[in-house]
Amino acid sequence: MLIVKKFGGSSVANKERIFNVANRIADEYKKGNQVVVVLSAMGDTTDELLEKAYEINPDAPKREMDMLLACGEQTSVALMAMALSSMGIPAISLNAFQVAMHTSSKYSNARFKRIDTERINNELEARKVVIVTGFQGINKYDDLTTLGRGGSDTTAVALAAALRADACEIYTDVEGVYTADPRVVPKAHKIKEISYDEMLELATLGAKVLHNRSVELAKKYGVDLIVRSSLNNAEGTTVKEVASVESMLVSGVAVDKDAARIAIIGLKNEPGIAFKVFDLLAKHNINVDVILQSIGRDDTKDISFTVDQTQAKEAVALLKENKERLTIQKIEEDETVAKLSIVGAGMQSNAGVAAKMFEALYGVGVNIRMIATSEIRITVLIDIENVEVAMKAVHAAFLED
Amino acid sequence: MLIVKKFGGSSVANKERIFNVANRIADEYKKGNQVVVVLSAMGDTTDELLEKAYEINPDAPKREMDMLLACGEQTSVALMAMALSSMGIPAISLNAFQVAMHTSSKYSNARFKRIDTERINNELEARKVVIVTGFQGINKYDDLTTLGRGGSDTTAVALAAALRADACEIYTDVEGVYTADPRVVPKAHKIKEISYDEMLELATLGAKVLHNRSVELAKKYGVDLIVRSSLNNAEGTTVKEVASVESMLVSGVAVDKDAARIAIIGLKNEPGIAFKVFDLLAKHNINVDVILQSIGRDDTKDISFTVDQTQAKEAVALLKENKERLTIQKIEEDETVAKLSIVGAGMQSNAGVAAKMFEALYGVGVNIRMIATSEIRITVLIDIENVEVAMKAVHAAFLED
Repeated sequence: MLIVKKFGGSSVANKERIFNVANRIADEYKKGNQVVVVLSAMGDTTDELLEKAYEINPDAPKREMDMLLACGEQTSVALMAMALSSMGIPAISLNAFQVAMHTSSKYSNARFKRIDTERINNELEARKVVIVTGFQGINKYDDLTTLGRGGSDTTAVALAAALRADACEIYTDVEGVYTADPRVVPKAHKIKEISYDEMLELATLGAKVLHNRSVELAKKYGVDLIVRSSLNNAEGTTVKEVASVESMLVSGVAVDKDAARIAIIGLKNEPGIAFKVFDLLAKHNINVDVILQSIGRDDTKDISFTVDQTQAKEAVALLKENKERLTIQKIEEDETVAKLSIVGAGMQSNAGVAAKMFEALYGVGVNIRMIATSEIRITVLIDIENVEVAMKAVHAAFLED
Repeated sequence: MLIVKKFGGSSVANKERIFNVANRIADEYKKGNQVVVVLSAMGDTTDELLEKAYEINPDAPKREMDMLLACGEQTSVALMAMALSSMGIPAISLNAFQVAMHTSSKYSNARFKRIDTERINNELEARKVVIVTGFQGINKYDDLTTLGRGGSDTTAVALAAALRADACEIYTDVEGVYTADPRVVPKAHKIKEISYDEMLELATLGAKVLHNRSVELAKKYGVDLIVRSSLNNAEGTTVKEVASVESMLVSGVAVDKDAARIAIIGLKNEPGIAFKVFDLLAKHNINVDVILQSIGRDDTKDISFTVDQTQAKEAVALLKENKERLTIQKIEEDETVAKLSIVGAGMQSNAGVAAKMFEALYGVGVNIRMIATSEIRITVLIDIENVEVAMKAVHAAFLED
């Protein structure tokens, strides 16, 4: 078996943790498996490097930033190879040049284009553990690039696809993907299997176990992902094309507290107004989520939508600047809201899921302010103070016996 | 003009120093010159990385050690490019892969074999300052190598040779090469020009301004080196094939306090004994320096020689183990000695230099314990307590009006 294992920065933050990971790798190797390991930078290394750069040049060229940040993973992989070597396990570290991991040219946010497998395969055939720098690649100019958030997960998936690995294991500080955040919903339980699409919806909605890009890449190349804990041997969650037939109607409940609701009131009820509003926001890269349009009084209409809190101020300012042109009478902003979602592949063929969710919320007196749905997801906007009671009620309705 | 400038780790140890160096580079660039900069790792970075490695594996594979250490210079060059960029100077950092700097395969002590110039020349033609990682290279397996002590100086010289640079400037924390250590000999003065061979002798003898390998490489490719201060604009010392005709009889006085004298007494006076002694030491990589052989009493002979203090214990142990075979009656070791040398290309054609040196030492009552000479050097072994008075006397005899 060829197995790709990815460990994040906190898993290699110090000597003790490095050896903890090295032991897991050694166990796999001793079973006779071929092992490729992808590592992130140790602990806070990336933040420290960013700070150094900021001190020198707050607006540093992204090419040079990537050159700098790439050192973080290179340090991790070299130290891990040393740790394995001290345990008598033959290991070799490889960086983006050595593999080579070809990406697009966009510094700080590159995408994989092609990964050479010759060097890795040669080292595996020589019975070495191969330890690869996550998060980085090289572009057509032979310059280092980095992949942006969740980059090391993406590296692991891309390597697993290129090497046709038998498994791709993503080690985290949780035991897998849960039906809800166990800190809020004590009865939440680990999901054994989940489809790529469900995982993508959950990730988008705040279950921060896997980054979307790695799941998208896994889906594209049909790589089965296993999310598991770096601290124990619990089984974890498998993310794959089609989860088992016994899959639940609803896989999980997710919450996003980082939403802000913006309402623009009293717009003229004429064609093209809504288009102008969202075109303006899109041109400024403001991502709009749940949208609700309602007819107001006197032939006017109101539009409300959610944006990420970090973009709310900018969105409001933009709308104010264009108040006349967009015929806006009043703008309201509210950050005391949260998005609560249920995700499940089973929804597609089952009527009544939405009704059951609304009933659960009604049962605990939670008011629904907006609703949005996709094929495998239902999202409601509620007051942030109701999040816990709402999560528990919805989880109980769908995911508890 | 194409100018290669090398700055050491202390010159880029913090933000203030990085900008100090960046300003010097900017000045050169604004004159219209093409500038290639070679940097070492910042301040104590290399020591910190070594410490991390030692913590994980005190006997780490050298390949992985080089992979780790290479991060030090990569961090420096990226930050320098950011600093220059913040000043409006276009700059690009390049590591060993990107250049590419091809070396032999010996990890931690590699030698340059070939340096590609295409990428650097392209960047220079685009009017960029090119900032290259010192100390590192890649071998035929595409693995990172490091060059050992003085590696960044060697990188600068190798680049200057490959690029046919008009000048190669090595910036240090002193203003150049001095006729003697100014802390000991207040009348010591900076040397304007010195030949490669003289510099090599001085370097070997403890004037730690330039590492021998960089001087040897400069000699091989006829690269003129300029040693100067990174803190001021003083002119510095030029190291070249033939120093100016006005060159002094003696260029400088150097002292090496790290020597130990070992005496083996009462050896049988038969052929091959000396060979066996030094063959034994050579096989254990112990470098023997000044050697003196004298006929003792009763048809026996004594041999004394100097080794570096760090190797003295091992040398004595080896000799003890082989006492019988080498017919040694007694072994003495003395670390209270120092080597005092005068170096000068002028010596070759001038008789009486040695006599003048011995006279100067006699004049201040310093006893000479051993003598060794080369074409351009005379070395005497003296008691360490006499070093200061001896240096001053010899310096006064040759290098003061």
